[in-house]
Amino acid sequence: MLELWELGGRDDCRFSTFSWRTRLALHHKGLAFVVHPVAVSDKTAIGFSGQGKVPILKHDGRVVTDSWAIALYLEREFPDRPTLFGGEVGQTLTHVFNVWVDRELIPALIPFLMGDVLDCVSEADGAHLRRQIESAMKQSLEGLSAGREQAMTAFRRKLQPVRKALEANDFLGGAAPTYADYILFGLLQWARVVSPAKVLEDGDVIAAWFGRVLDLYDGVGRRERSRLERAKEAAA
Amino acid sequence: MLELWELGGRDDCRFSTFSWRTRLALHHKGLAFVVHPVAVSDKTAIGFSGQGKVPILKHDGRVVTDSWAIALYLEREFPDRPTLFGGEVGQTLTHVFNVWVDRELIPALIPFLMGDVLDCVSEADGAHLRRQIESAMKQSLEGLSAGREQAMTAFRRKLQPVRKALEANDFLGGAAPTYADYILFGLLQWARVVSPAKVLEDGDVIAAWFGRVLDLYDGVGRRERSRLERAKEAAA
Repeated sequence: MLELWELGGRDDCRFSTFSWRTRLALHHKGLAFVVHPVAVSDKTAIGFSGQGKVPILKHDGRVVTDSWAIALYLEREFPDRPTLFGGEVGQTLTHVFNVWVDRELIPALIPFLMGDVLDCVSEADGAHLRRQIESAMKQSLEGLSAGREQAMTAFRRKLQPVRKALEANDFLGGAAPTYADYILFGLLQWARVVSPAKVLEDGDVIAAWFGRVLDLYDGVGRRERSRLERAKEAAA
Repeated sequence: MLELWELGGRDDCRFSTFSWRTRLALHHKGLAFVVHPVAVSDKTAIGFSGQGKVPILKHDGRVVTDSWAIALYLEREFPDRPTLFGGEVGQTLTHVFNVWVDRELIPALIPFLMGDVLDCVSEADGAHLRRQIESAMKQSLEGLSAGREQAMTAFRRKLQPVRKALEANDFLGGAAPTYADYILFGLLQWARVVSPAKVLEDGDVIAAWFGRVLDLYDGVGRRERSRLERAKEAAA
């Protein structure tokens, strides 16, 4: 049995950038799994894992934490299922890509849109996230939000290596998606679920690629309602 | 027959970061080739290629320019030789890596050490390189050189994605080198050949990896004398 713990917000929205990586990796492997939503500030619910972060995978009693460690675990435990890395070269370069996204792309986008998350989570979770980001960025969420247009322009520029590869290929895995696609997808899905901001410009090949990943596995990514969709429903 | 045109400087030193990528790719494929050194400012010598940059590969009369296009060409033309990319996922992610190194790493290091190249090339070439860098960076070579310690600290930090992968693997290709290794090698080899500056700190896993790549193919990288080695010889 496979169980996944991931962040859950108001309206049951699922916005964890790291958990989306794991979710799509599980679908990629064709594995059935149960999902448990956890509130950001509820550390007791995941105390069993011996640490405080999601995603957490439990597989037949074994607990694995950290999205990259989970990806390696799935590749090792289910070698006969579709590969997440396409071999040794792909795995090492996916590792480079994973650290690059974590260190260069996430901090270039998430803090600037984090103000939007406050409406998507409980008050306790919002206070928790505010403290986390404001102490990391040494700036108020409101100040960060005010700089978002400039930040998104810089973020789009940082995506140039991905853009060049996607001009020549449908996915970062080539003709078919692999784990590298899910790494970047997780970040853009986070933005889609929590914020009305337009992160990618129309006509950007990355926007077309994002649409393709949203459609994978019966549209599991697309079925998660975006912030704009939830707002429309609330207004209707 | 395979011929490679690459930059050549004083004392026959070979410092082109892009040509080193191609050189090691040719060795990786186990191909014999002839090398033609070209001066930076000598555009007539490579006029036959219809453009002004090295590396240039000529294979049985066909001319291929641009190091990435050459790598794709070699992989396609010599599929039975050792692979440069390790399959489709590896190829696409190597493309991402190639653009990242070109856009993020090269500008973070080369301009700051470019002052050292002046002693490695003819006066005409030096003037050419000075104009090129000063107009791109909107700063004098001397001003750039003065900021080199700070720049190298930032550069080392930018290498973190590579460092993490090399903590777990001998090469960016995993247990054996692939083209991604040669992409980064070319940059560090450029620095080794033109500058006495210590780009990597002792104990950095990337320094150990660089040593391993210098040793590949009968030490073709190491046989190219470093700036420090040439200075010692000149002083002796």
